[in-house]
Formats: sequence, C-alpha cells, structure tokens
Amino acid sequence: MGSDGRRVRIAVDAMGSDSGPEVVVRGAISAAQAAGDELSVTLVGEEGAIWQALTDSRARDLPIFVSHARQQVEMGEKAQRAFRRKRDSSIAVCAALVREGAADALVSAGNTAAVVTTALLSLGRMRGIARPAIASVIPTSRGRCVILDVGANADCKPIHLYQFAQLGRIYAERALGISAPRVGLLNIGEEPTKGNAVTQAAYRLLDADREALGFIGNVEGRDIFAGRADVVVCDGFTGNVILKLAESLASVARRVFREEVRRSPFYSLGALLVRPAFTGVASRLNYEEHGGALLLGTRGVSVIGHGQSSSRAIRNAILVAARSVRGGLEAAVLEAMGAGEAAAATGG
Amino acid sequence: MGSDGRRVRIAVDAMGSDSGPEVVVRGAISAAQAAGDELSVTLVGEEGAIWQALTDSRARDLPIFVSHARQQVEMGEKAQRAFRRKRDSSIAVCAALVREGAADALVSAGNTAAVVTTALLSLGRMRGIARPAIASVIPTSRGRCVILDVGANADCKPIHLYQFAQLGRIYAERALGISAPRVGLLNIGEEPTKGNAVTQAAYRLLDADREALGFIGNVEGRDIFAGRADVVVCDGFTGNVILKLAESLASVARRVFREEVRRSPFYSLGALLVRPAFTGVASRLNYEEHGGALLLGTRGVSVIGHGQSSSRAIRNAILVAARSVRGGLEAAVLEAMGAGEAAAATGG
Repeated sequence: MGSDGRRVRIAVDAMGSDSGPEVVVRGAISAAQAAGDELSVTLVGEEGAIWQALTDSRARDLPIFVSHARQQVEMGEKAQRAFRRKRDSSIAVCAALVREGAADALVSAGNTAAVVTTALLSLGRMRGIARPAIASVIPTSRGRCVILDVGANADCKPIHLYQFAQLGRIYAERALGISAPRVGLLNIGEEPTKGNAVTQAAYRLLDADREALGFIGNVEGRDIFAGRADVVVCDGFTGNVILKLAESLASVARRVFREEVRRSPFYSLGALLVRPAFTGVASRLNYEEHGGALLLGTRGVSVIGHGQSSSRAIRNAILVAARSVRGGLEAAVLEAMGAGEAAAATGG
Repeated sequence: MGSDGRRVRIAVDAMGSDSGPEVVVRGAISAAQAAGDELSVTLVGEEGAIWQALTDSRARDLPIFVSHARQQVEMGEKAQRAFRRKRDSSIAVCAALVREGAADALVSAGNTAAVVTTALLSLGRMRGIARPAIASVIPTSRGRCVILDVGANADCKPIHLYQFAQLGRIYAERALGISAPRVGLLNIGEEPTKGNAVTQAAYRLLDADREALGFIGNVEGRDIFAGRADVVVCDGFTGNVILKLAESLASVARRVFREEVRRSPFYSLGALLVRPAFTGVASRLNYEEHGGALLLGTRGVSVIGHGQSSSRAIRNAILVAARSVRGGLEAAVLEAMGAGEAAAATGG
C-alpha cells in the first residue's frame, strides 16, 4: 500500500513488448495476483487489443484498469521526435498519469530512449541531478547488486558518476532493503590511478566523500558477479554492455551444458536428477527474476523493461515499481540531493 | 618450427607470476613437452630460483634454457619508471632477446603495463599503428572470439578502434586459423547511430571499409558469448572489464551450483553422474584453456598472461606465442598495414 494506506497505482505501457500486449497483460495479472490488495494496474495502449487479452484471462475481480492511447512509439524511433510528435503514445499517457497524480509509477518495456526522454521531459528532472541514470539489478553469487548507469548516458563526466553513486546507494537501501550498501566504481584496476580519464577523476570525487557514500574504491569486472559491491557505478556504455552480457549468460550456459550432456546416457541421467538444482541456479542467475531497470533522477518512479521481456519480467518490473513507491524512493532521493547540495555548499 | 625449419624460440619471463617461478617453469615444461621438437624455451629471471624449479621436474632432455636477469618489475610498479630504472628486469631481458634475434617471441604474466611499455619502447611500434592493443581470446558457445583492446588503451579514438579491427582480423586468421573472420564493433545497439561519441565515429570509419575488414556492424554485450562475431572491437576499458568478468564466470557458476546441489542427496547423485559433462563445460568456458593475450602493433610477438596465471595458462600462452610465430603474424600485420596505407592514399 502507499504511505496513506491506499493501493500503489502503476501505469503499465501495454504496447511496449515486442511480442504484443498479451505478454504485458499476463504480467500485469500475475503482479496483481501476487500483490493481493496492495496494487492496482492501469494498462495503457490500444484499448481493443488490451480488452481482448484481458477477457482471455483470470483478470476478473483484480484491480486492473485500461486507459486508451491511440499511438505507439516504435522500437527504432528517435526518442526526441517521438516525444514531440506522438503526444498520445502509450508511453506519453503513462507519464501523464504519473504527472497528474493518477498513478504512482510507470512501467514500460518499450523503446528505452523514448521512456527516458518522456520521463525527463514530462515528469521533469530532480533538482541537483545532472543526468538521470538507469539502474538495473543483477544477480551475484552472494545475492544481487545494483548497477548504474546501464544505458541512459553513453558518455559521462566524473560528476555524473559521482551522482550515480548517490542515486544507486539510495536505490539499494530503499528498493532492495540493503542497509549500508557498499558502493564501488567500476574500473580496470584497484589502484586510484587506474582507469580512463573519466574514472580517474570520478575516483577522486568519490574518495573525498567516502564515508557518506559508502564508497569502497574501485571494483573490477571479476568483482561484479562475485558480489564485492552492492552498487556498481559506471557510464551507460559500459553498464549496458555488461547488462546485456549478463542477460545472455543463462542461455549460453544452458546451450553448452546441453551439448555436453548429449555425449553420454550417464550424463543424461545425471542431468535429470540434477535438474531442480539447475533450475535453482537458473532462477538465481536469471535477470528476469530481478525485475526491470529503474530510472533514477527524474520525478516519479519509472521502471524500464526491455522489449523482449517475458510476462514474468513484466510482473517483476511492476512489483519493483510498487516496492520503490512503498519504500519512499523518490522522497529519499530528493532529500539526499538536498543534503548533498548543503554539504557541497559548506565544503563538506 | 619457424619458417626456416628451426625451432620457434620463446623467451619466457619466469618472474611474472604472483605464485613465483615454479608455476612458470611447470608451464614451460608442459609446453615444451606438448610441442615436441618444434619449440624451445628460454626462462628469464633469477637464475638460482629457476634452476631450483627445473631440477624438481622432468625438464631433462627438453629444449629449455635459462637466462639470468637480476631485476624484477613488481606488480604495482609504474611502467615508464620501471622501464627507465630496471634495464635488467626479466621483462626487459625477454624483450632484448627478441630484439636481438635470439628469441622469436616473449611471454610474460607480469605487470601488464610494464610488458606493454617495454615491448613498445624496446621492440618498437609497427609503422602505421597509432596504438598497440592487447587481444585476448575468449570462449563462446560456438567456439571462440578475439576481443581487443583488453587493457593497453583505456581511452581510445575512433581511428584506434579502426586499427584494432585490422589487427584483430589478422590475429584471428593467422593465430586462430579462422578464415574470413567476422569483425564486430562492440556497442549498445545495432543501429549505426547508437553508442558513445567514439563508437559512433568508429562505426563510420569501419563501415566505409566494410568488405576489406569483414565488418558486420555493431555487436552488443549479449552477442559476445553467443559467438556472433569472431573479432570484437572495443576500447581497452570496456574490453578489460568484460575480460575480467568472463574470467570470473566459471568460478561463480561453480559456487552457485555447489550450493544448490547441497540441498538434496538426489542432486548430489545427479551431480556426480553429470560431473564429466560439467568438466567439459568448464573446459570450454575456461579462459585459461585459450592462452594468453597477444600484444598487437609492436614488433615481434609478445604474449601477456596475468599474474594469477596457472601453469596451464602459462603453457597455453607459450603455445599461442609459438603458433603466432609459425602463422607469420608479424609479417601479416606489417603487410596489411602497408596495404592499408596504400588504400588510404588512393582513397580506397
């Protein structure tokens, strides 16, 4: 429930999936079922298609609503252009619902750049944030970690990375419930002098604020899945490459293992017995289980899936959005940014 | 054998491993055994320690020699400084052996920056190459791919990435025997306009030379392990992060699987039966099996391991060096760079 006891209301872009609205609708139904009375979903998009998908399912009696949007942003479309020309796209309508207070958060698996641009221009950037970032949660051998930015900013300045550390820390605390998160700067060596020009300068900024940020220094590629940090800070180019690589691992490992198992009937028997353990591994390492990516630094709460999201991924994205609203993420960021400004002003 | 029928002669930095010279010596012995009569190894470093490790083993009758170096570059040491002050370090002596024609290639698992600097300043940069790059081979579900740069250049310009494509292509052909390798630019979207400022500009350079380079366009994080390209081009920051991440995967997957298996005796039985298949997977995905990273763009052939290299990794690094010498890698790069210059001069 929201802080005032009412349901958390999520606006979901029903047109965002590559596989059509059915996948999104199934995900929404599953999320509403899982959340019991605490959640309501408004599906936004082409009304006819959404109702069609809804009648097929056990959606009755669930708090699911439909809001019509007559346009749709395509995957390849330029974000700025789409924002200007398609004022009635499903993404734009989702953002409008949040802006007008009719929804607490939006979830879209559509064109990422369009979601970022729409959130930025329609909901607005938070005061004190130079660049909003997309934070994603990836599984590690010890649990999970937040990595940001994973795609909103391909080129970053040191101050952006510094702010990503602030944002990531709050996300880890408020949405994942990690107390005193360890924040690492993704780099190519442990020493402060390692890295490219941007990470070297970012290290100095972060190091100067080590305690307040929970900064533990540089982390390397090998530290990510090993779970050395709860928050991994990087530019959106590196983060996006890593995220997509991580997403592909489960299926690559499965394919290679299946090939090996075919070499002997004994292996096949073993594989049969061990399958539940495998399912456990797959589930722990499966990106979809960990929900969507959160846009941080804009007003409201926006969760971004990707176009190939399964209904399970959509479900989890909706639940992450709800948890972020309940955790008071937006207020916490606003407060921290205010505090950050005050600290900067006094040289703290 | 070298092209003139004699043995390929490899100078190996015996002081480069974190675990001491024994590991390197064992790797050298194993490589010499595997290569039969085609290879000779000169172990370079503190003579006493090397001889000690050699008497412990079945090194007799193998073409293994020792060359004394009274200094050693430490892991944390600044590369330029080490080059100036430690003229008799094991890395410097290896490079001198190659420069003077007493060895065909060098292998070191020492301080990477020191190896790069020494190779660059002692052996010299190839004509037409703006920046040497480190190319590594990583396993994919379809086989393997070359990724470069993985750490020599944290900040790159578009022309550097273009040249990495040229270098990587030749490496894939000459050292890995891949005919008509597919070269991809690592990026965060398939479209030419995606990416950061450097990859956007690099795309245009590569695209203009699409056929000659075997350029297949942008590849994303998910495409690397899926084997969509034989050569993946990126800056040294991104490449290093990915390489270290890839190296860590085997151990992370093993740990998570072991935890899952412990949950039931049935799983354990299955795991026992399936273990050989697992070993197959581990071996296919194991970075060590694929040898060291090759420095491309300097004269001679230099292979760089990392300080945590096992003797198996050292062995494979030596065999990669030998294969690169036999494949005529250096001559092929020189020729291609000459051709590249000619093409550029005629606007081709």
